[in-house]
Amino acid sequence: MDSNIRLPKTKVGYKSFYKIIEVSKELFRVKGVSTTSVNEIIEKAEVATGTFYNYFDDKLAVYKYLLDDYSTIIRKRIYDAIRTVETRYEKERIGIKTFLEFAREDKLSYRIIWESLFIDQRLFVNYYTNFSNAYVNQLAYAVKGGQIKDNIDLKTLSFMLMGIANFVGLQVVFEGDLSDEELDKITDQIMYVLKNGMFT
Amino acid sequence: MDSNIRLPKTKVGYKSFYKIIEVSKELFRVKGVSTTSVNEIIEKAEVATGTFYNYFDDKLAVYKYLLDDYSTIIRKRIYDAIRTVETRYEKERIGIKTFLEFAREDKLSYRIIWESLFIDQRLFVNYYTNFSNAYVNQLAYAVKGGQIKDNIDLKTLSFMLMGIANFVGLQVVFEGDLSDEELDKITDQIMYVLKNGMFT
Repeated sequence: MDSNIRLPKTKVGYKSFYKIIEVSKELFRVKGVSTTSVNEIIEKAEVATGTFYNYFDDKLAVYKYLLDDYSTIIRKRIYDAIRTVETRYEKERIGIKTFLEFAREDKLSYRIIWESLFIDQRLFVNYYTNFSNAYVNQLAYAVKGGQIKDNIDLKTLSFMLMGIANFVGLQVVFEGDLSDEELDKITDQIMYVLKNGMFT
Repeated sequence: MDSNIRLPKTKVGYKSFYKIIEVSKELFRVKGVSTTSVNEIIEKAEVATGTFYNYFDDKLAVYKYLLDDYSTIIRKRIYDAIRTVETRYEKERIGIKTFLEFAREDKLSYRIIWESLFIDQRLFVNYYTNFSNAYVNQLAYAVKGGQIKDNIDLKTLSFMLMGIANFVGLQVVFEGDLSDEELDKITDQIMYVLKNGMFT
């Protein structure tokens, strides 16, 4: 689990660094991490072998950077979308819709994130544990404000909500290119169940 | 996607067949499919190379058999647990609890099922599409009987429910060995949200 990175010190260095990241992302998405070699990354990124190892200990270091990056990008997109919204209900709706849009756009993101399960299970556990912790904080705040019922265990609720977003995200990936209107309708279905339950 | 299997014709044949399956399952769980070779399977199962190829075209054929087997086992366990239960609410509760028990027992089942995403994405899509279709049939029956609201899109609902079971299943795996009582409490949380919603 060492597999460290060293950030560049120059603008030119950053150019190579991001080139390596971009090329790796594409290779990991299409071929998977386990079947991509450092040599392929170096060749496609058109950097010297030494340049690669200046910044990354190994392939796993690149992968860990990308996984962190996904976590940051997804959370930032959701945060930006919901931060000016008032109610928790609306925050949840827009947060879920933003996640579904992300799944529609980046159909292979699941591959990169879930491959952690095969590379080092701790990466997978950390990824979703961190996501759950952040979710619990948000939900706790809404409970305090009286917007979410105060008798639900928030850890389990966070896993439920992540599960809903991820699996309806799979539905979105499976169905191909859905329109914004269709995504809105799917989001409404989710919100209806979260608001009113599914049983009569 | 050919990778066919041929079932044995004798009792002795079945013994070898199941030995290959059992050994492969263990190797796939621990090492993953992509890093397990047919030679390792043959060696550990203590069968002749010819015996392996009598029954399986290749490693992928073994994997496809195992994936089908998981699908059958999980669905049969849930079916057996819920078939004498009357209401859809109770069926859902027991179905979800059965799935969580399965996750607690077979912590590596996710690895085998989700590795399909990296082996051949169509296997992954089929696995969850079939599961969703079966779920939709059950839910439609409950809608007809007035036990589930008739204004929810059942396909999206099926993906929501699969997502809840799978991700709360991950919570169960992450937390280690939960007691039956703890699993019951987690299931109650889920059912509360499905019955009453989460918002005030």
